[in-house]
Amino acid sequence: MSEFEQALSKKDLEEGSKLSPRFDANGLVTAVISDADSGQLLMVAHMNAEALTKTLETRQTWLWSRSRKELWHKGASSGAVQDVADILTDCDQDTFWLKVRPRKAEDTCHTGRVSCFYRSVNPDSGDLDPVTK
Amino acid sequence: MSEFEQALSKKDLEEGSKLSPRFDANGLVTAVISDADSGQLLMVAHMNAEALTKTLETRQTWLWSRSRKELWHKGASSGAVQDVADILTDCDQDTFWLKVRPRKAEDTCHTGRVSCFYRSVNPDSGDLDPVTK
Repeated sequence: MSEFEQALSKKDLEEGSKLSPRFDANGLVTAVISDADSGQLLMVAHMNAEALTKTLETRQTWLWSRSRKELWHKGASSGAVQDVADILTDCDQDTFWLKVRPRKAEDTCHTGRVSCFYRSVNPDSGDLDPVTK
Repeated sequence: MSEFEQALSKKDLEEGSKLSPRFDANGLVTAVISDADSGQLLMVAHMNAEALTKTLETRQTWLWSRSRKELWHKGASSGAVQDVADILTDCDQDTFWLKVRPRKAEDTCHTGRVSCFYRSVNPDSGDLDPVTK
């Protein structure tokens, strides 16, 4: 899977209209996934070229699981499939921001939560506190 | 810089109150940075242990520049210093979400924009369109 055009000039990469993902040494880009309606950050994961292609084609979230080393159709087993409303990329095209609508919000995190970000660093103790909201 | 406790059990890593960042093979965690007030995603970058420590100590954004291979006090040269209101981590503690207030919003991206995410993938053409809002 390498249909994406590569090696644009820095100017074209940053200011152009051509999609040219900059995959890292492991063939991955970062995927930041937030809720399209609430704006809440849900999870951060990775995509290889095939996962990105499938995400663009199906408008659902496909990822690359680094731990399982396999393509991962998010929610295929839990029911927490994510319909993708919008996909943005950043200046150097090594990160993609997916705005999604999860079909089963409570299982977005494998711990059974709506978001993977459920703890904040306490500035005084340096320990983690549960996020209350 | 390795003051962070490592090798927690999976349960303690995910459910505990101990900060135990899981740095990757390059010694980095992902930093997702959004605006504390508007919620807008501003940029995605990386932190090594020293950058994370300095961010926690100073409550300003410190990063590791992979291209320049150096510690990076965000905004030190441009004036776009970011005051950190809150720092969250995710289930497996390999990503940190910084909610910040930039002192000079328009220079958050090195292209002179408020956010690095200024283009979206057009679902029909597959090309990038400017984000209008």
